[in-house]
Amino acid sequence: MVSIIEYIDQNKERFLEELFYYLRIPSISAIASYKPDMFRAAGYLRQALLSAGADKAEVFETEGNPVAYAEKIINPALPTVMVYAHMDVMPVDPIDLWHSDPFEPVIRDGKIYARGADDDKGQSFMHIKAFEYLAKTGQLPCNVKFMIEGEEEVGSPNLARFCEEHKDMLKADVILVSDTSMIARDIPSITTGLRGLTYLQVEVTGPVSDLHSGLYGGAVANPVIVLAKMLASIHDENNRITIPGFYDDVMEVSAEERALLSQAPFDETAYKSALNIREVWGEKGYRVPERTGIRPAFDVCGIWGGYTGEGTKTVLPAKAYAKISARIVPYQDFEKIALLIKNHLETIAPPQVTVKVDILHGGPAYVSPITLPAYQAAEKAYTDTFGKRPVPFRSGGSIPIISAFERVLGVKSILMGFGLGSDSIHSANENYPLWNLYKGIETITRFYHHYTAK
Amino acid sequence: MVSIIEYIDQNKERFLEELFYYLRIPSISAIASYKPDMFRAAGYLRQALLSAGADKAEVFETEGNPVAYAEKIINPALPTVMVYAHMDVMPVDPIDLWHSDPFEPVIRDGKIYARGADDDKGQSFMHIKAFEYLAKTGQLPCNVKFMIEGEEEVGSPNLARFCEEHKDMLKADVILVSDTSMIARDIPSITTGLRGLTYLQVEVTGPVSDLHSGLYGGAVANPVIVLAKMLASIHDENNRITIPGFYDDVMEVSAEERALLSQAPFDETAYKSALNIREVWGEKGYRVPERTGIRPAFDVCGIWGGYTGEGTKTVLPAKAYAKISARIVPYQDFEKIALLIKNHLETIAPPQVTVKVDILHGGPAYVSPITLPAYQAAEKAYTDTFGKRPVPFRSGGSIPIISAFERVLGVKSILMGFGLGSDSIHSANENYPLWNLYKGIETITRFYHHYTAK
Repeated sequence: MVSIIEYIDQNKERFLEELFYYLRIPSISAIASYKPDMFRAAGYLRQALLSAGADKAEVFETEGNPVAYAEKIINPALPTVMVYAHMDVMPVDPIDLWHSDPFEPVIRDGKIYARGADDDKGQSFMHIKAFEYLAKTGQLPCNVKFMIEGEEEVGSPNLARFCEEHKDMLKADVILVSDTSMIARDIPSITTGLRGLTYLQVEVTGPVSDLHSGLYGGAVANPVIVLAKMLASIHDENNRITIPGFYDDVMEVSAEERALLSQAPFDETAYKSALNIREVWGEKGYRVPERTGIRPAFDVCGIWGGYTGEGTKTVLPAKAYAKISARIVPYQDFEKIALLIKNHLETIAPPQVTVKVDILHGGPAYVSPITLPAYQAAEKAYTDTFGKRPVPFRSGGSIPIISAFERVLGVKSILMGFGLGSDSIHSANENYPLWNLYKGIETITRFYHHYTAK
Repeated sequence: MVSIIEYIDQNKERFLEELFYYLRIPSISAIASYKPDMFRAAGYLRQALLSAGADKAEVFETEGNPVAYAEKIINPALPTVMVYAHMDVMPVDPIDLWHSDPFEPVIRDGKIYARGADDDKGQSFMHIKAFEYLAKTGQLPCNVKFMIEGEEEVGSPNLARFCEEHKDMLKADVILVSDTSMIARDIPSITTGLRGLTYLQVEVTGPVSDLHSGLYGGAVANPVIVLAKMLASIHDENNRITIPGFYDDVMEVSAEERALLSQAPFDETAYKSALNIREVWGEKGYRVPERTGIRPAFDVCGIWGGYTGEGTKTVLPAKAYAKISARIVPYQDFEKIALLIKNHLETIAPPQVTVKVDILHGGPAYVSPITLPAYQAAEKAYTDTFGKRPVPFRSGGSIPIISAFERVLGVKSILMGFGLGSDSIHSANENYPLWNLYKGIETITRFYHHYTAK
C-alpha cells in the first residue's frame, strides 16, 4: 500500500493547485465587504471535503459568516476526531509592504507567500489531505468531522452558539487544531497553553471639530495628547500593567513549572536579530518566553487621529482613537478584564475630553494537560515524523473559541500547529514553507494511527 | 459718485460669481497632485486683477507653487500699498464631516461654505474688490501691488527667496494682509502679534514588521506605546513644556502689558460652549487669551500607527508616527526650537526603538506696534465701518512669511483680518459670512483713504 510519504509525493502538484485556489479567495472577516468571498471559501471547502472522502458536507449560515461542516462516520462505536479550523484571514494593510499580491500565491525559496498561507488555510489544508489519504486508501481508523468557521480572526462571535445549536452533530472525543507554531523547524513542539484576549476601541473626543492649532493650541486640551497620556500610564517603570485589579486572577506559575518551561530552548540573540530590535522589553522578573507564555500583556494594535496625510496640516484634532488588546492568562476572566480596562480608561480621562470605550471581542485562556491520551498520541506522531520528542509549549497567542469547545461540547483540543515564527502571520508577506506543509500532513496522518491503536 | 456701500450693493451678484469660481479650484498645497490646480488659481488671479484695474499682472513660477503678482502704479512719488495673500488652501480630510462639497461653494444662513471661503480666498477677494472700486471710480490715492502665493499653508518655503529675487518689484511702504480673525462680529480687532511655528514629523520604528500581538505582546516594545510615552512626557503637571531650553528665549510679557491685553473681552463660558468642551486647558498661571497670544504651545496635529481600519486586527505595529507642532512667541528662534524638539525626542527614545524626526517647516513670531501710521489708518477705517475703535489683539496663529517680509523687504505688515472664530478654517465646513465679506471691502477701501490723507 502507498505510504503517506509516497502519496504526498505523487499528489504534490494537485495539492498546490487546490491550495492556491483556496488562497486566492480574499476571505477577510474584519471587513464586511468581503462577505461574498467568505461564502466562496465555504463553498470551496464543502466541495474539497466531499472530494477528499466525506459522506456529507454542508455550509451552515450563522448571524455572521458561514461554517463549513463535513463528516465521515465509518462506525458510530468508534472514536470521533473533529478538526476545527478557520477559513477567514486577516486584513492585508499595509499593502505596500507585500512583495507580491497577498491573494495571488507564489512560491519563493520553498515557501508559499499569500495571506492565509499559514493562518489558517495552509494549516487546515493539511488536515483535509491527511483525511483524503486515509479515506482513499481505506485506512481511516475512526470517524472524522470537520468544522471550519469564518470568524476566528474577529473573535468567533457566533461559533459558541453554533456549537450549542448543533451539539449532537458535533459530538467528538477530541478536537484537532492546527493554528499555532512550532518552536523551530528542528524543535517540534505542541502548544499546551494559549493566552486569552480582550480587544477594545477607545475614542477620545475634545472640541466639537478639528481646530486651528495656532488659534487654539495651548488653551484647548489636545485629544491625541490626552490619549497618549492615558496609554502611557498603563505600564509602570517595571512594565507592569497599572490597571487596578488587572493581575488579581492571574494564575501564578510555580517555580517548579517555570523551571520546566525554561527547558524549551530560547535564543534571545536570534530572536532580536529576526525582529531587528536592539533590546527586548517586558515585565521585570520574567524571561521572554514567560512574558508571552504565562504573563498577560497590554498592547495598542492601532492608533489614529488628526491629519495623517502627506505634508503638514496645523490642526488641533477633535478626536483620537486607539484599538487596544490585552492578552490574558488562565483564571483571568476576559469579560471582567475588558470591563476593568474600560472603567479604568473612563476613570483616568481628564474633564476636558469625553472618552468612549467599546468592547469588541474576547475569549478566555486555555491549558491542555500533557497527560491526555490525545496529547500522547500527538507526541508519538511528532516523534515518528521529526525523529525527536516534541516540546510542550505555552504560546502567547489566542484562539478564543478553544475554551468554548470545552465549555459547550465538553471536548479538549490538541493544538498541533506546524507554523514557524518566521511565517509573518497577521503581517505582510505571510508565508508557509512547503516542508512544514508536507511534514504536517505526515504527522496528522500518524496521529490517527496512534490515537486509535490499542 | 457711487459710494463703496452702493458699489458693493450694485455688484454683489457678480462678486459672488467670481468668488465662487475661485473657490471651486481645489488648490490644496499640502498634496502634490493638486499642483495643476494651483496654476489654475494663479491664472484666475492674474485675470481677476487685470479686470479689477491692474496695469500689469503676471504669474511667476518658483521651485514650488506659482506666485500671482499685479500692480497699478499711478505715480512713483506716491506711497505704495502691497497686498499679500495666499491662493492655496488646507486639505479637506476628514471629508465625511463636511455638510456640502468643500469645492462647490453654497450659501447657507448668510455664510459661504467652502474650503478657502475665509482662509484665504474669501479674505483676499475683499482686497481685489476694494482695489477694483478705487480704480474704476478714479479714486485710487496711491500705488497698489498684489503678491498672492500658493504655499502659505505649507510654510511658504519659496516666498522669502522670491522676495529677495524681486526686491525692486516688491518695493512698498506697507503690506496689508487679511488672513486673521476679529474677536467677534461686534468687537472689531486688528491683529498685532502672531505666534511663530515649527512643524515636525516623528517616526518610531520597533520590530522589522507588524507582529502578531499574541505571540509577541509583552516581550517586544510596542512603538505606539513608546510614542505615547514620549508625547505624554512633553507636558508636566502644570502643562508646561518639559523640553530642556524650550522657554529660554520666550519674551516674558510685563504685568503692565498683560493688564492691557486683558482688556480685550473674553467670555470663557461662550468659548467653552462654542467648542463643546467642559473645561479649558493650558499652562498654569495664564488666562486663555494669554495661553494662545503670548505663550508658546506644543500640539500633536496627527498620529497614526498599526491597524486603523474597520473591526479588529491583533497586531503589534512595526511603526508609529506623529505630526507635531510648536507655536512659538517673539524671541524664540523657530530653527533652534525645531532642533531642541528633535534632539529631545531622540534623547528620550528608549533603546528598543529607533526614532527619526524630520523638521518640515517653520517661521518666527511677529509683533506689529500700534504706533505705526499704517496701524493708525487701519484703526480709523475700522472705526468708520464698525462704529467703534478696534482692539489690538495678539493671535495664536502663525503666518511665518510676515517676519520674512520685514527681514527681506524691510516692510511692516498690518493684519486686517475679518474672519470669525466660527469660520472653521482648517476644519470641515469652513465658512465666511457675507456680512464680513462686505464689511471687509468697506474697511479696506477706507484704509486707502486714511493712509494717504494729509
